[in-house]
Amino acid sequence: MPDSIKVGERVERVMVVSKMVRRDFSGGKFLLFQFNDRDGVLRGVWWDPTEEAETSIPANDVVRVQGEITEYQGALQLKVSWLEKLAASEYDPTVFLPATPRDPDGLLEELMEAVASIGNEHLQELLRRIFGGDGFREVFLRAPAAKAWHHSYIGGLAEHVRDMTVMARAASKVYPEVDRDLLLAGVLLHDIGKIEELSVTNHISYSDRGRLVGHIVLGVEMLERHLAQMEAFPAELALRLKHMLLSHHGSLEHGSPVLPMTIEGMLLHYLDNLDAQVRGALMALERVGGEPGWTEYVKLLDRYLYRGEAEESEKGSDE
Amino acid sequence: MPDSIKVGERVERVMVVSKMVRRDFSGGKFLLFQFNDRDGVLRGVWWDPTEEAETSIPANDVVRVQGEITEYQGALQLKVSWLEKLAASEYDPTVFLPATPRDPDGLLEELMEAVASIGNEHLQELLRRIFGGDGFREVFLRAPAAKAWHHSYIGGLAEHVRDMTVMARAASKVYPEVDRDLLLAGVLLHDIGKIEELSVTNHISYSDRGRLVGHIVLGVEMLERHLAQMEAFPAELALRLKHMLLSHHGSLEHGSPVLPMTIEGMLLHYLDNLDAQVRGALMALERVGGEPGWTEYVKLLDRYLYRGEAEESEKGSDE
Amino acid sequence: MPDSIKVGERVERVMVVSKMVRRDFSGGKFLLFQFNDRDGVLRGVWWDPTEEAETSIPANDVVRVQGEITEYQGALQLKVSWLEKLAASEYDPTVFLPATPRDPDGLLEELMEAVASIGNEHLQELLRRIFGGDGFREVFLRAPAAKAWHHSYIGGLAEHVRDMTVMARAASKVYPEVDRDLLLAGVLLHDIGKIEELSVTNHISYSDRGRLVGHIVLGVEMLERHLAQMEAFPAELALRLKHMLLSHHGSLEHGSPVLPMTIEGMLLHYLDNLDAQVRGALMALERVGGEPGWTEYVKLLDRYLYRGEAEESEKGSDE
Amino acid sequence: MPDSIKVGERVERVMVVSKMVRRDFSGGKFLLFQFNDRDGVLRGVWWDPTEEAETSIPANDVVRVQGEITEYQGALQLKVSWLEKLAASEYDPTVFLPATPRDPDGLLEELMEAVASIGNEHLQELLRRIFGGDGFREVFLRAPAAKAWHHSYIGGLAEHVRDMTVMARAASKVYPEVDRDLLLAGVLLHDIGKIEELSVTNHISYSDRGRLVGHIVLGVEMLERHLAQMEAFPAELALRLKHMLLSHHGSLEHGSPVLPMTIEGMLLHYLDNLDAQVRGALMALERVGGEPGWTEYVKLLDRYLYRGEAEESEKGSDE
Amino acid sequence: MPDSIKVGERVERVMVVSKMVRRDFSGGKFLLFQFNDRDGVLRGVWWDPTEEAETSIPANDVVRVQGEITEYQGALQLKVSWLEKLAASEYDPTVFLPATPRDPDGLLEELMEAVASIGNEHLQELLRRIFGGDGFREVFLRAPAAKAWHHSYIGGLAEHVRDMTVMARAASKVYPEVDRDLLLAGVLLHDIGKIEELSVTNHISYSDRGRLVGHIVLGVEMLERHLAQMEAFPAELALRLKHMLLSHHGSLEHGSPVLPMTIEGMLLHYLDNLDAQVRGALMALERVGGEPGWTEYVKLLDRYLYRGEAEESEKGSDE
Amino acid sequence: MPDSIKVGERVERVMVVSKMVRRDFSGGKFLLFQFNDRDGVLRGVWWDPTEEAETSIPANDVVRVQGEITEYQGALQLKVSWLEKLAASEYDPTVFLPATPRDPDGLLEELMEAVASIGNEHLQELLRRIFGGDGFREVFLRAPAAKAWHHSYIGGLAEHVRDMTVMARAASKVYPEVDRDLLLAGVLLHDIGKIEELSVTNHISYSDRGRLVGHIVLGVEMLERHLAQMEAFPAELALRLKHMLLSHHGSLEHGSPVLPMTIEGMLLHYLDNLDAQVRGALMALERVGGEPGWTEYVKLLDRYLYRGEAEESEKGSDE
Repeated sequence: MPDSIKVGERVERVMVVSKMVRRDFSGGKFLLFQFNDRDGVLRGVWWDPTEEAETSIPANDVVRVQGEITEYQGALQLKVSWLEKLAASEYDPTVFLPATPRDPDGLLEELMEAVASIGNEHLQELLRRIFGGDGFREVFLRAPAAKAWHHSYIGGLAEHVRDMTVMARAASKVYPEVDRDLLLAGVLLHDIGKIEELSVTNHISYSDRGRLVGHIVLGVEMLERHLAQMEAFPAELALRLKHMLLSHHGSLEHGSPVLPMTIEGMLLHYLDNLDAQVRGALMALERVGGEPGWTEYVKLLDRYLYRGEAEESEKGSDE
Repeated sequence: MPDSIKVGERVERVMVVSKMVRRDFSGGKFLLFQFNDRDGVLRGVWWDPTEEAETSIPANDVVRVQGEITEYQGALQLKVSWLEKLAASEYDPTVFLPATPRDPDGLLEELMEAVASIGNEHLQELLRRIFGGDGFREVFLRAPAAKAWHHSYIGGLAEHVRDMTVMARAASKVYPEVDRDLLLAGVLLHDIGKIEELSVTNHISYSDRGRLVGHIVLGVEMLERHLAQMEAFPAELALRLKHMLLSHHGSLEHGSPVLPMTIEGMLLHYLDNLDAQVRGALMALERVGGEPGWTEYVKLLDRYLYRGEAEESEKGSDE
Repeated sequence: MPDSIKVGERVERVMVVSKMVRRDFSGGKFLLFQFNDRDGVLRGVWWDPTEEAETSIPANDVVRVQGEITEYQGALQLKVSWLEKLAASEYDPTVFLPATPRDPDGLLEELMEAVASIGNEHLQELLRRIFGGDGFREVFLRAPAAKAWHHSYIGGLAEHVRDMTVMARAASKVYPEVDRDLLLAGVLLHDIGKIEELSVTNHISYSDRGRLVGHIVLGVEMLERHLAQMEAFPAELALRLKHMLLSHHGSLEHGSPVLPMTIEGMLLHYLDNLDAQVRGALMALERVGGEPGWTEYVKLLDRYLYRGEAEESEKGSDE
Repeated sequence: MPDSIKVGERVERVMVVSKMVRRDFSGGKFLLFQFNDRDGVLRGVWWDPTEEAETSIPANDVVRVQGEITEYQGALQLKVSWLEKLAASEYDPTVFLPATPRDPDGLLEELMEAVASIGNEHLQELLRRIFGGDGFREVFLRAPAAKAWHHSYIGGLAEHVRDMTVMARAASKVYPEVDRDLLLAGVLLHDIGKIEELSVTNHISYSDRGRLVGHIVLGVEMLERHLAQMEAFPAELALRLKHMLLSHHGSLEHGSPVLPMTIEGMLLHYLDNLDAQVRGALMALERVGGEPGWTEYVKLLDRYLYRGEAEESEKGSDE
Repeated sequence: MPDSIKVGERVERVMVVSKMVRRDFSGGKFLLFQFNDRDGVLRGVWWDPTEEAETSIPANDVVRVQGEITEYQGALQLKVSWLEKLAASEYDPTVFLPATPRDPDGLLEELMEAVASIGNEHLQELLRRIFGGDGFREVFLRAPAAKAWHHSYIGGLAEHVRDMTVMARAASKVYPEVDRDLLLAGVLLHDIGKIEELSVTNHISYSDRGRLVGHIVLGVEMLERHLAQMEAFPAELALRLKHMLLSHHGSLEHGSPVLPMTIEGMLLHYLDNLDAQVRGALMALERVGGEPGWTEYVKLLDRYLYRGEAEESEKGSDE
Repeated sequence: MPDSIKVGERVERVMVVSKMVRRDFSGGKFLLFQFNDRDGVLRGVWWDPTEEAETSIPANDVVRVQGEITEYQGALQLKVSWLEKLAASEYDPTVFLPATPRDPDGLLEELMEAVASIGNEHLQELLRRIFGGDGFREVFLRAPAAKAWHHSYIGGLAEHVRDMTVMARAASKVYPEVDRDLLLAGVLLHDIGKIEELSVTNHISYSDRGRLVGHIVLGVEMLERHLAQMEAFPAELALRLKHMLLSHHGSLEHGSPVLPMTIEGMLLHYLDNLDAQVRGALMALERVGGEPGWTEYVKLLDRYLYRGEAEESEKGSDE
């Protein structure tokens, strides 16, 4: 809990109920809580709770709670006066999870700019339908790009896609043979299934469909649902785009049911891989401890990473 | 060509045009042909062909041809009097391709019996919709189960599925925990995408969608199209069935985007693999040459197969 | 210990001595014990033990112990009056180890029925010699099929072999080219070396020969010892059967020194693998904890297993 | 040979001697030749050659030859009047080998611009020393980037490096944590050892040192030779740059003795891999035959590549 | 055929019948032959052959043939006067196959010296029984150590084993912890099963048991047959020796059913591997063509081998 | 600490400071220590330390400390009177690390004998330069051959190289085609880079260059520095020797950037691998616990190792 919280203060906070126990006393019953949010842990007690509270609040639910800070056995305790369960749409997940340091609206704006730059009218319409869909914006900006590696935080998906669009534009200049519009559309849509694969409440987890179907096929299904409503969309173009989503992991053993067989599919894979690996390494360099100059062994990369000599870290200053 | 063909005979045959050359002579032009069917090769000539014949018949097309057998330079030659191009539905592919030795109608009957044995009404309805679909019967009975390995012949798919149903029934007795209805449905539908993946005309080839999407996802899309019209179909059951189709190759490196995570999915994979490998080996034992007792090296199995000593081959007689 | 045990009760139990310490007191010495069986832990004390007890009972020995339940420092303690060490044949291993839920005699009867169904007189005689051997029945019914995965319990081997015979019979109908008698004989004998590989006392462990030679070669040696006494046994048939035992793991990296090169060898491998994997998954589904709908990560399968939604678990009832 | 060559014409050409045979006749001897260049094959004859010609011209040598075009047995034949062997520096290899379609001077200019953009004075000086070295320009512009895959033509190395600098600049904007100067230096130098690994005369081959040492270590040795003369070069910076050269293949099994352990090393690897794979696929799409819509099987990519439907190829026009 | 053979000469030679055809003429019948030995091919004719010759001589049989050299249509032809089929023991296989350049008796003597140096009486007796067995000497000296790689010639097995004993003696000095007697016994016996695995007549091939059982298990069976007759042989020593034979390929994927788990087993594997690889490379350097300084690509080693500059090849002279 | 240390004794020891804390008291300050060496742990206190001691002694430094043994709270405590930090050259690392049981001078003598036996004058001079270099002896004898597996102790490198020379000499007799001088030189120099890769102070760790460059390339660089000063050294010989160092790991995935392509390179690899694996297993047998007869699971070998029955361990005595 933040140091600023003081005994006697009245608070209203959104927290997750990590434990709840019912106790009886002569005059009735009370509930003992352990609440968590990103600031840490807070114990609580609710005397004479509502009837429904006890039964309807399983552990791990997110609640809005009001009350007063008291002290009990030398530690702070929240004396609850009111508490209600919240639906996923009623709270900001960044209360519990780390989020991209970048401005979400700025990220989205950059993506919409990329959409606007697409000359092919079919692809442009498709992207406008998807990105402009009802509620899509909220869901998309909330999504991480992975559960436990690169971009595994709120907004990670948007950040990953935005960074890839920048490099995709450079690549399409280097390889004029590439259909730039198709490449950009593939970049924008390649991980769209992550929205359904990963469930983001107060923690990131896989949905049942996420595990049993996987984000690649879930993404293709989302694409098909939109294409089904666009009669004029050229079949060949749809096939090429679908192929890019299916093949973007680059190899069967990484979960793509087919290998990339078009230039746009190959580029999508290599750009995706580059951004995932480099972002993952940057996160490891930032977060992981270790000896001077080095991180601990980073399992997902199967290596140590070198931070360099202390002097070197100031290298930027005089250059 | 069959030995029975004689000079002077009039014939009408369905054959594939493997070569066609136009020649001019003083009085006009003629076309020289090489025709093929499963009996072998026949040369032909067409004097004063129709205008359209020359332009509309690319090599590899299947045609119905009428004419008279003549002799030219010591070999039989068909003097064509009429020739017309046929659509895929207008000829029997077994003219060109090997076919299952079993009775197609018998195979289908056994499959429909398996469908009838399914107690779950949703699964039963789904299977009736698919197997009873317009024209499905013809397409399904024509399909091979692979391009170049096990069951790579007309009717191979039906044979593969039928053989798996027999063993799936035995397995569901051994493992009563298994949902027998779901297992049978999975067996019946697991390779349904092969219908779109493989193109069977006068030879077996991959369709563009077959290569770029793959039969696993094509099959799931067919399933989804039917489920979209069955509102009462339980979502959980649909998810489990879809998971079986997606995971039936058993591992990512064999092209399944997810591993089997249900008992029915695991059983489906092991039954599929067993039948594919054993049928493939039986075909190799039947077709491949070699030294006494042994086949040649069978690349797809990475081994020689043992036929055994000659005496041993009569082992069945006195037992 | 079972809740039913009460202070003052006299008991006689078979247990393993997990710890034993000698203490001296003015009037002589006593032994302190920790006993274990499948019900849990019981402490014990033996005043004035026999001379021989102290020296001849190393930890992990199985003993029959008599005495009276007392209380010491708030816990039950067995005051030992008599204790004797047991040989492996003198106690029922299911006191310590889980066992197949099926009836052992029923399993054996089914196996003997399978033997009886074998038409080839040589194979039938061989199987009768082995399964009818002195003491074989006890050893065979005690054996697990693995140390720590599928069928890793008393009677697991018999269960594994029986389940495979059911599916082998179905398979031999699907593939009439298969020598059904040889296939059944291979199924019945394929893991026979497990009897020597795994040592089953109060826990399952590898014998020295089990680790240094392995059950595949141990099984072949057992086979050879019997064949050496059957002069009329056809050499070719013996070779084919031996090949099946050697190759049944299906690949070199799984410990078979040769690949299956006969149809019967291939079928044996695929049936063995199917039953091992599916039984292993069923055991994991039954035993392993996890979140709702899912098991924990199952290392040996490299995946989570899906139990499904709660509602789905009642799927059987109305279908 | 170009169609424009006519009988009676006098020519002077640089060609490779692909065959040479000596013949004797009554009045002396003559030499019969087969010459090759990128235009094709030309036969030749030299009456009364110089003494030295016969002994000093082994097959595969490059020569400058003068003579007159004659006709012999219905084909063109060069009647040689003069012929001299050329050293590698005396002819333009593009006479024999394909070359980048881009302007070599333009490529080099772009590379020198990249050098100029480097703020770190040590790295800038190092790059100027290497790229400005005596004769370096010629050698560098001649080098391919591989023997038989991507960029396997004259100027391929320069093209590969130039294309990577464009994408490296985009990447350094996406990842501001990256030391842009170091990344660019690594890109410019990463394949410098190819100059010594590959020998480019009238064909591309490996030098002995190329095979026995490899371009990675050869490149590090070139780097060390220059660094040895730059006393003020910071040791840490040298170590990071050397690490990039050593690790740029990204994994041990691809020939790097160490894995990339810095962000700049990782980025270098992923950019290198992206450009190699995409350029290789573009070359395959351009050169390799196949059925309509598809290339033949491309072994180095382990897949077919999709060219798409003919109609689709005009996709650019109306969008 | 050797140049020295002349028309009119009478010869008696051992050759293999690579083809035989029967022809009839008015006065009876004759047989046409093609004979082969290491000198090449010789055609032959037999007028009025024995009744039995025609039926009892299948192709690939080895025969002793007498006759006179004649000329027919410009080529030498043997006019056969007598011909008889030979059993494997009746001819010297080096007539058809390459053989070790070393003296077979010398090799055997060195092996028997190694046997004599073994202090452990049980091991010594075992080795004397095996190496001194009836006819063992001939069979052992004939055996190659592989079909198509290192030591793939007559006497190759003896050579391989002898070379390993030299290095095993050095190794047992380096590692005094090793049981030298056991190591030597393991070296002498490790490939003993090759005698039954490979069939050496006029060419090297696998026997049926060789393919279906493999030389590792065949060797263990030979060992067991001898041990069964040596009652005093210590069980532990037998187990360790058997383990060495079983594990000497060093890994499951190379065909050992168990990994080496003793020091002697590990040493045996590494010595075996060293000698196989180095001898294989020496043979490739000697036999395989290539460009100056290099062999062609050697598939079994997955690399080119370097012969070095011509000058270097004289390096031995002044050192 | 050794049992022999008594209260009141004055001691002077070299130890590592594993912890140091400053405390203040009314009359000034004191430092509390925890010292470690191979004998164990000793606590210490320094009243009124020098000003500089407190700031200049970070944890893990090696110090020489003088003082008197006292007792504090029932344990021995060193009352420090003097303490000074030592540089790496000022103490014997065997105070902290295990060392080879062999005599270092004897090892070096054997290596110098091997050098002396080399006939090629260039190789001999090179080896004398390197092994006779200033301070080389100390550094070389201190080096382990690995951080955490075979020979991971002081002197391990010398021991590893010496043992390989013995077997290399035997091998060069078995293969007379091998250039014995080159092989010995390769053995002596192959791991020379370990001196710079591993840092040996009071523990073994990787240096920054060790991780980022690796001992293979570091070794080649050391070689090049010496060769640069030997003008007469034949280029071909240098290339072959360098190739041996680069390729001695035997495969790319083990960190060699090129495969061994010469016989000497191949032999070096197999000898290196043999000694590393066998020494590693001997160390595991000596140090690792386990059940009777067996070690625990040895991860680096992926197996259990067999020690054998107790009786067997006396096998040496009566044989």
